[in-house]
Amino acid sequence: MALQLEVLGGAGQDNALLLRVTTGQTIHRLLFDCGEGVLERLGRAEVQALDHLMFSHLHMDHIGGFDRFFRTNFARVSKPNHLWGPPGSARILHHRFQGYLWNLHAGQSGTWYLHDLYPDRVETVRLEAGEAFAVAHPEPVVPRSGPFLETADYTVDALELDHRTVSLGYVVRERARPRVDPAALAGLGLPPGPWLRELIGGPPEGDLEVNGQRLDRRSLRAALLRPIPGEAAAYLTDFLLDPATLERLRPFLRGVTTLVCESQYRAADLELARRNHHLTSRQAAEIALAAGVAELVLFHVSDRYGGAECSEMLREARSVFAHARFPEAWPLV
Amino acid sequence: MALQLEVLGGAGQDNALLLRVTTGQTIHRLLFDCGEGVLERLGRAEVQALDHLMFSHLHMDHIGGFDRFFRTNFARVSKPNHLWGPPGSARILHHRFQGYLWNLHAGQSGTWYLHDLYPDRVETVRLEAGEAFAVAHPEPVVPRSGPFLETADYTVDALELDHRTVSLGYVVRERARPRVDPAALAGLGLPPGPWLRELIGGPPEGDLEVNGQRLDRRSLRAALLRPIPGEAAAYLTDFLLDPATLERLRPFLRGVTTLVCESQYRAADLELARRNHHLTSRQAAEIALAAGVAELVLFHVSDRYGGAECSEMLREARSVFAHARFPEAWPLV
Repeated sequence: MALQLEVLGGAGQDNALLLRVTTGQTIHRLLFDCGEGVLERLGRAEVQALDHLMFSHLHMDHIGGFDRFFRTNFARVSKPNHLWGPPGSARILHHRFQGYLWNLHAGQSGTWYLHDLYPDRVETVRLEAGEAFAVAHPEPVVPRSGPFLETADYTVDALELDHRTVSLGYVVRERARPRVDPAALAGLGLPPGPWLRELIGGPPEGDLEVNGQRLDRRSLRAALLRPIPGEAAAYLTDFLLDPATLERLRPFLRGVTTLVCESQYRAADLELARRNHHLTSRQAAEIALAAGVAELVLFHVSDRYGGAECSEMLREARSVFAHARFPEAWPLV
Repeated sequence: MALQLEVLGGAGQDNALLLRVTTGQTIHRLLFDCGEGVLERLGRAEVQALDHLMFSHLHMDHIGGFDRFFRTNFARVSKPNHLWGPPGSARILHHRFQGYLWNLHAGQSGTWYLHDLYPDRVETVRLEAGEAFAVAHPEPVVPRSGPFLETADYTVDALELDHRTVSLGYVVRERARPRVDPAALAGLGLPPGPWLRELIGGPPEGDLEVNGQRLDRRSLRAALLRPIPGEAAAYLTDFLLDPATLERLRPFLRGVTTLVCESQYRAADLELARRNHHLTSRQAAEIALAAGVAELVLFHVSDRYGGAECSEMLREARSVFAHARFPEAWPLV
């Protein structure tokens, strides 16, 4: 398993984060935000394969590329269709679904779930292509404490941040997965072999044939398997950093390996960042340091800066947290 | 005066038409349709300078680039803001205005007029940036017969076409403008000079000093000025061509010099064109021939065709109407 992160969009442009959770068997694709042009370099197949689109908030620079996503997927039946965002997002996104002429929708398939993430619950409406997306059908409200999305391979949690509106930060955590402890295996005197794969992937109870003997799966699992923690990645953008927020971010980011974090302004423009409820590069680095992440990727940089200032911005971050960088595709050191 | 036409977007992509009415004193800019990516190569200043955005209809490929237009202009006060389309467009466009989070709109300026063009009237709603565009304020209904927009420099008329929904075709006509008849001038024995510009551009009545004499403007205008008809251009896309439609198009296109017309399919795919209520290249040429235009520009070509088939498509059109071509920027002969 692994998390693959790809920041979409260039320096000074709208950005988004494509996160791939690869398990060896499948690839889950999560998109965070969808500003103008961010899907341009992704092939159509990749856009069709997106499993979840999660919005920090719905300001123009985070939603302006939605038409491309929607045009590709509006009638998709190959996967469930889920959009997530802070409270009020479903209402706004429903307007987007109605921002086209629908006169050929009879018989169209395609069901969409629009989720508003509250701290304690998820409110969901369902829209149907066959109804021209006209009706927001209420779905059951689901209570929430911690992750709002839990699959066999990963979980996603969200935290409310203050951008004069709610901007959601997200953390994706791979599930811990079992691996065989070689010392324990040797201790039991059992030979390695394909039965180990069956022990990990097969049913947790019952018998398993090993070397001609029938052994109890439950006992074997307890004796041989140890959990490997998964990776975790976080996406944070568009918010005011104050001491209370930093304290709330610390537990939220626990175990995060890669932090993708807004760096709208240079450290010298801290007042501007505060006024606009954005971050400086130094603040992003302070978060990375406080949370003890392995790596910080700076993105969502203001278009007011040229290349030299962006390099300076990176130096400012690295003076606080050494493992800071811009996205690989950006022509900046 | 002159009409300058620029088809936006490439072959097989979404297209739009930018039409500039140049008067020597000013340039009026009209945009017809706004599909994905069509504004990409226009500078920000050019998008800010658009006077009117007129939609044939609001299928995805005609509206998918609206975010770019809107993000540039939503708070514009340098010009009035007008959107036009067939009945139902204002309702759909209002959804688009509400497809963003508006939490910083207090004190924002920017007034928008969304017009639904009926054959006999124009229904209009007004939206205000300062209200987060939440309320569609009804404006007085304006009866219409013929052009729905009449300025000192040009008029715009629209015709209902059948795309299983109304698709509007548009004709822009420059106003006729007066020029001096040299023979009449010689007949009166008056010398040419700057007074002629004053006769054309000044008040229609009163005295004008010519060569030391005070002459009556009204009599001079009647004796000396002759109208020069303006150019006219038409934009037609997404409709079924049948004999009745061809008959309706003939008077609608009277005097049109350049016809920009959809050419979605090759002539061999006529059945497909009929089924989807689109045109073939040959049909576009038949319209050009019937209307007696000077020039036909084919656009909105299906992405199913490669370069060789597009060349074939052009030959098919030229076999009916010789002065057919693709947009200048397309890499096709």
